Amino acid sequence: MKKISFFLFCLLLASFVHAQQAKYVFFFIGDGMGVNQVQGTELYLGELDGKIAIAPLDFTEFPYATTSSTYSATNGVTDSAAGGTALATGKKTMNGVIGMEKDQQTPVASIAMRAKEKGFRVGVATSVSVDHATPAAFYAHNPSRKNYYQIGKDLFLAGFDFYAGSDFLDPDNQGKSESLYSLAQKNGYTLARGYDDFVSKSDKADKLILFQTEEASKVHRDAIPYAIDRKEGDLALSDITGAAIRFLSKDLSKGFFLMVEGGKIDWACHSNDAATAFREVMDLNESVRQALQFYEEHPDETLIVISADHETGGLVLGTGEYALNLQALQYQRVSETGFTSILNGLRRQTGNRVAWEQVEEALKANFGFWNEVKLTEAQEKRLRDVFDRTFTGESVEMEKSEYAQDEPLAAEAVRVLNEIALIGWVSGGHSAGYVPVFAIGAGADLFQGRMDNIEIPARIAEAAGYVAE
Amino acid sequence: MKKISFFLFCLLLASFVHAQQAKYVFFFIGDGMGVNQVQGTELYLGELDGKIAIAPLDFTEFPYATTSSTYSATNGVTDSAAGGTALATGKKTMNGVIGMEKDQQTPVASIAMRAKEKGFRVGVATSVSVDHATPAAFYAHNPSRKNYYQIGKDLFLAGFDFYAGSDFLDPDNQGKSESLYSLAQKNGYTLARGYDDFVSKSDKADKLILFQTEEASKVHRDAIPYAIDRKEGDLALSDITGAAIRFLSKDLSKGFFLMVEGGKIDWACHSNDAATAFREVMDLNESVRQALQFYEEHPDETLIVISADHETGGLVLGTGEYALNLQALQYQRVSETGFTSILNGLRRQTGNRVAWEQVEEALKANFGFWNEVKLTEAQEKRLRDVFDRTFTGESVEMEKSEYAQDEPLAAEAVRVLNEIALIGWVSGGHSAGYVPVFAIGAGADLFQGRMDNIEIPARIAEAAGYVAE
Repeated sequence: MKKISFFLFCLLLASFVHAQQAKYVFFFIGDGMGVNQVQGTELYLGELDGKIAIAPLDFTEFPYATTSSTYSATNGVTDSAAGGTALATGKKTMNGVIGMEKDQQTPVASIAMRAKEKGFRVGVATSVSVDHATPAAFYAHNPSRKNYYQIGKDLFLAGFDFYAGSDFLDPDNQGKSESLYSLAQKNGYTLARGYDDFVSKSDKADKLILFQTEEASKVHRDAIPYAIDRKEGDLALSDITGAAIRFLSKDLSKGFFLMVEGGKIDWACHSNDAATAFREVMDLNESVRQALQFYEEHPDETLIVISADHETGGLVLGTGEYALNLQALQYQRVSETGFTSILNGLRRQTGNRVAWEQVEEALKANFGFWNEVKLTEAQEKRLRDVFDRTFTGESVEMEKSEYAQDEPLAAEAVRVLNEIALIGWVSGGHSAGYVPVFAIGAGADLFQGRMDNIEIPARIAEAAGYVAE
Repeated sequence: MKKISFFLFCLLLASFVHAQQAKYVFFFIGDGMGVNQVQGTELYLGELDGKIAIAPLDFTEFPYATTSSTYSATNGVTDSAAGGTALATGKKTMNGVIGMEKDQQTPVASIAMRAKEKGFRVGVATSVSVDHATPAAFYAHNPSRKNYYQIGKDLFLAGFDFYAGSDFLDPDNQGKSESLYSLAQKNGYTLARGYDDFVSKSDKADKLILFQTEEASKVHRDAIPYAIDRKEGDLALSDITGAAIRFLSKDLSKGFFLMVEGGKIDWACHSNDAATAFREVMDLNESVRQALQFYEEHPDETLIVISADHETGGLVLGTGEYALNLQALQYQRVSETGFTSILNGLRRQTGNRVAWEQVEEALKANFGFWNEVKLTEAQEKRLRDVFDRTFTGESVEMEKSEYAQDEPLAAEAVRVLNEIALIGWVSGGHSAGYVPVFAIGAGADLFQGRMDNIEIPARIAEAAGYVAE
């Protein structure tokens, strides 16, 4: 009898050890990262190793893996506002709404806010603008994701320790209001522009906002460059993640919650640009590595969770043949948007009298066409036809996707390469497919069984003790 | 010190209790059942309940859920032979090969064979022919999945206790060899035709093969009917599963391993027929319920695992709008193949002079078109054009998918309904997308973390003690 009660005591003790709270929480969100975006990246990496096999990412090897559904309160297919709100607050809402119930009025607190209330240090970081739907859902309440200035103001109300992204999208309410940069200063935030600036300002800063340089924002305010387009000196998501960890670690006694969004997986998928999307997933993995390094130093108190808000594009690995040819994607050296810039450069150089031979050279250099990647006559004709249609008149109608207006020839080149890689896409919008969930560390065992997106923040809150008392 | 060692002892004891062996194993394989096939079924059921939410299946609520990759030894996209072999044996092989290494010579033992060797009773059941790739991988070794007669003979060599399916595809080696029915008798197998026949023969039979009735096989030897087409008296997968459990339970002291394949999810997806595919997933769930009933009686010793060999069709939930309209699928009352039969009936009735009005009536009755499901002018024109093209001449070229040759009008009607439901398909073949894995019961905790298909039988073997000594 004594033995039995002692056994029970041991079990209780074991379950207590087991249930150690997550003092440090990393929540990575791959925007638009459905299961096929992850599996495709791994199969692509496998093919680059010369194998028919996956080359696993770091996060797919986490001990806990499951899937989540993503529908919103109002739509079978969610947008990033409702998806972000579900992941941030555990409440489903209407598409387009940030941090509020579907009545578009009642604010809902995010786990980041609850962490802050509990005294944890908090960071919110992204590869797109800091006021974009996913990060916004963690600090703002707004009936519309498009109210960027109001959302930006909420960032100071939430008062988190660290924010990062490309920039503010609408810093002065289209000229009508006091600028968010000025408000940042008044609210005690140090603004760092680029990683070097962060390093020099970090120690003295109480609260910090990290953006890319002003020069970079002049070219692309809405996001840092795609990984595939990155040049030396460009801010990278792993820089941002490293900065966030460094900043939040200034006082480890408080613990922290950090959300990092890989925001441009979604953008690449809206353009049906697989090579660019897979590089973005790899880039998110680079950021996860930074968290894993921290985890290795604090294994008993760190939780890392990876998930996504929805799938984008209806990406399918295989188009009917019982084969993949993903390795072809390695010869794409710029994003569709990056190739648009190259074509624009040619237009400028030549006074809009670009010769086919010049385009051919650009396609060789940036997609490997004709050299590493053989084209059929029909594929070559498609490219040539688009050239004839769009490079001979005075103006060209750009091909629009959610976040880009690309040269039709750039879009066609990407379509041809995806076709060669045996990748299919169903649309330029989102889909309702499952998204993956991966977890490691303290409380990671809560991430078992198929779940709905609203359960993810609930389980993080449980693991980290953010629950209301 | 004494306390610590006793604590360790308790932990060991706890882990021993935890690791109780699975005496009864159910392995359900949804052929072609990718993650979206499952999620789509649940969202469809949710819409039927009038909600934007999933209505969960029984198996998606299992405590353990993860995903698996499916590539074969030779192809980024597997076929059912290599996929089945991976799931049965834990070895990847060449597409087309059954239960052998990719050298097409070296046989590999399946977990069913290993269970048999260990003295467990074994059953292999499917909704398609018993010699089809997936079931065959559990009992046969053959360089080609198409050698149906040879594969059928292996069924007696393996000597399992229970087999079920629609029938043998090639019972007498195209007239050249002794029939498999005769060999069945010589090998001590009782052949039952239909569920009633099973009930009357089961008690006395030592080993048993359950097929549909000979009448049914005259109409469709290759599979039992789709759930959506099922008529009273047709053999159903849940009948087969119930029969298997009843037969294997005759001597529970031995324990058992039972594989049940939902083989026609794949077929419906090859035809890009979502309504039929979702009904097949629901039907697989009905069979899982039979296993769950058994599990509830033997919770500590039963393991149920659900997975799939690959995804079929590149099914995407959402075609660009941020919405789904899956409820429209409820008005489809027959499969594409079933509607082909209806159209064939009209052709016969009228001496191949079918009027558009007759087709219109059939479309109303079987797809709800014009009544419950409104058509655009363009959609109506598409149907009318296919009618004009295929119902006015003497012959018609059938639309071929992997397992069906359907009337073009049946295929077009399904395409129109899928479009209205906002469902996208990428091809008529397989894809390399993740497949789901669900597990409950003894050893189910082994099914954690993202896995590759070959790990699934390895973990079943571990849970059930099929491992070599």
